[in-house]
Amino acid sequence: MHVDEFLFVLAVVLVGAKLFGELAEKLGQPAVVGELLAGVVLGGSVLGVVDPGSEIIHLLAELGVIILLFEIGLETQLKRLMAVGPAAAVVALVGVILPFAAGYFMAHAFGLGMLSALLMGAALTATSVGITARVLSDLGRLDDPEGQIVLGAAVLDDVLGLIILGIVGTLVTGATITAGSIAWSTISAFGFLFLAVFVGSFLVPPLFALLERIGKDHTLAIMGLVLALILALLADRAGSALIIGAFAAGLILAPTKQAHAIESGVVRIGGVFVPIFFVAVGAAVDIRAFLDGSVLLLGVSLTVVAVVGKILAGYAPFWLPVRKLVIGVAMVPRGEVGLIFAQMGLTTGVLTTQDFSAVMMMVLVTTFVAPIALKALLPPGQGTRDAEIGISDLTSDA
Amino acid sequence: MHVDEFLFVLAVVLVGAKLFGELAEKLGQPAVVGELLAGVVLGGSVLGVVDPGSEIIHLLAELGVIILLFEIGLETQLKRLMAVGPAAAVVALVGVILPFAAGYFMAHAFGLGMLSALLMGAALTATSVGITARVLSDLGRLDDPEGQIVLGAAVLDDVLGLIILGIVGTLVTGATITAGSIAWSTISAFGFLFLAVFVGSFLVPPLFALLERIGKDHTLAIMGLVLALILALLADRAGSALIIGAFAAGLILAPTKQAHAIESGVVRIGGVFVPIFFVAVGAAVDIRAFLDGSVLLLGVSLTVVAVVGKILAGYAPFWLPVRKLVIGVAMVPRGEVGLIFAQMGLTTGVLTTQDFSAVMMMVLVTTFVAPIALKALLPPGQGTRDAEIGISDLTSDA
Repeated sequence: MHVDEFLFVLAVVLVGAKLFGELAEKLGQPAVVGELLAGVVLGGSVLGVVDPGSEIIHLLAELGVIILLFEIGLETQLKRLMAVGPAAAVVALVGVILPFAAGYFMAHAFGLGMLSALLMGAALTATSVGITARVLSDLGRLDDPEGQIVLGAAVLDDVLGLIILGIVGTLVTGATITAGSIAWSTISAFGFLFLAVFVGSFLVPPLFALLERIGKDHTLAIMGLVLALILALLADRAGSALIIGAFAAGLILAPTKQAHAIESGVVRIGGVFVPIFFVAVGAAVDIRAFLDGSVLLLGVSLTVVAVVGKILAGYAPFWLPVRKLVIGVAMVPRGEVGLIFAQMGLTTGVLTTQDFSAVMMMVLVTTFVAPIALKALLPPGQGTRDAEIGISDLTSDA
Repeated sequence: MHVDEFLFVLAVVLVGAKLFGELAEKLGQPAVVGELLAGVVLGGSVLGVVDPGSEIIHLLAELGVIILLFEIGLETQLKRLMAVGPAAAVVALVGVILPFAAGYFMAHAFGLGMLSALLMGAALTATSVGITARVLSDLGRLDDPEGQIVLGAAVLDDVLGLIILGIVGTLVTGATITAGSIAWSTISAFGFLFLAVFVGSFLVPPLFALLERIGKDHTLAIMGLVLALILALLADRAGSALIIGAFAAGLILAPTKQAHAIESGVVRIGGVFVPIFFVAVGAAVDIRAFLDGSVLLLGVSLTVVAVVGKILAGYAPFWLPVRKLVIGVAMVPRGEVGLIFAQMGLTTGVLTTQDFSAVMMMVLVTTFVAPIALKALLPPGQGTRDAEIGISDLTSDA
């Protein structure tokens, strides 16, 4: 690719992502929906400006998703998760198991192979913590009991989703599926995450405290990014996924005093790379595929499973006096992690363009519908508009 | 390039640049010197980790230099330049003409062709505004009359250097050198810059005021970057250089109310890309070439011309009661623009690796020596350490 062409594509991607992102927000939708739509419009099936198969777009999109998961990790307070406790855990678990199983059997019923069906199920598991937190924050409901449970559950099922991603990612590379290989995948994914966070929590904070003393503010963000790159590479070497390493780097740095400085820099850097990821994902959607009856049917079926599975999960903490429908609806939007599964399926050839389009339809619909339904259920509350954990900073660029 | 390899190279480049950059600063040198040395170490002649010829490194480095020139433009207040007035103008003009002419004839005497000699002369013209402003700011001398003149002259000769770059850039593409083509190059370079700044000054500020009302802070920085990309592409189409367009975008935005928000975001984004440029430049240096007697002789000769030319320029405002030696010495360090010339010469084949290495030697030596000499001439002053225009923000990431 020539420099001219590269700069042109980059300018178009950034303008398209921002334009559609802001437009989506004006319409009360999360920016990520707009960025995906920008990708659809710029992609091969409409304007043909962005070729998601080009090497440089692919590499920059990968860097984008690594930075995104690093940001999500930075926003994730392990302690906070523990405080929300069993209710969040049970919502997360039920909300992962139900959609995963239902999605798997549904895909199987549609005649998909085992690996494709696994990927479909996996793409249904994880609530978008970014989108959900942003919607709750916009409604002033993050500090409600329901908001707290949803936030905790969304973060937990992101972690569960990432671990499933690690397992599925290994399977997708062609490793045979045996009880042993699944166990090994689980151990390596869990093992890497825990080992990285455990070892990292001892080594990294003193290193960054030292960096803060000798270096500049901007250095901290760059070195945070470098940590994410290094752990991503280590995760990959350990048989896990790149993004699990990036997420682990975020988790390690989240409790440090330097977390805020790191995040404020990384969010701005992500402002360039993260939209490239979403636009590249959108560009891979062939909208003509939506007109295909079987794609439409699979997409609608997946969407129904996605919605019903999470709403049922909302009723899982049956012993608590909270509005369980609110919890379930708030868990509905799928986002980053689902998209990563879909993208992985497409690039490895496990999903056809049709399968991929059906997953994309599910992601787009759940992401569109949930904020509207939540607003109907919840009049604006008295809570603070800006969440304590500042997740609106994150999502405004994601 | 595989994703793994890309992430590894990126991590190594960022760590190397930061490590050597901070180390250079601890030794009282500007960070850019360290980043160049990091490139030399990581490049083909030592460790071989960074291949400046790889497509993705090349594209990201180009983006880096575009962002750097955009930052310099954002730091450049046209009004401020006019206030420093004739003294700065005469220092800039003499400081461009003397080294250019002397460098051209020197290179000619060494047997280089006309185009190569032109490039050599051009590489000697522009004082590094980033390095110079940073050194003066560190010494608390930016508000002295000498400091003001140096700053104005450094910015002016950057503009002159960029115009020369536009001309030479056109010649390098193979256009025949006639009085007409030189005139046309001059007109298109000047013309583009003035037209872009003139038209942009009407269109862009209302646009960014609107963006500020409807969008978020982070959007401003991204849209500023997009403006830089668009003007870079337009400059290229107009027969000028990409970086002139990026610089023009900075000039246009510098007086707007949104300039600070844009800059604070762009500096962080540049923190990733700008070091890639300097490391890529350093990686192209073949240190074995320094051992070559003729390279050493040419390098030393260029360095002498570079130092003497600028010191004489310091005496140009003969009518003013200022310390002229201080002005001249402060103008000595060459940086970004000189490197861009050298890099352009190398990639177009106008400079051999030997010629390129001689230019690199000149850039490295002038950049190393000037801060040390300035400190000897000037005891730390009472001026503010942080310049009003905040250029230390810029250079800390450059």
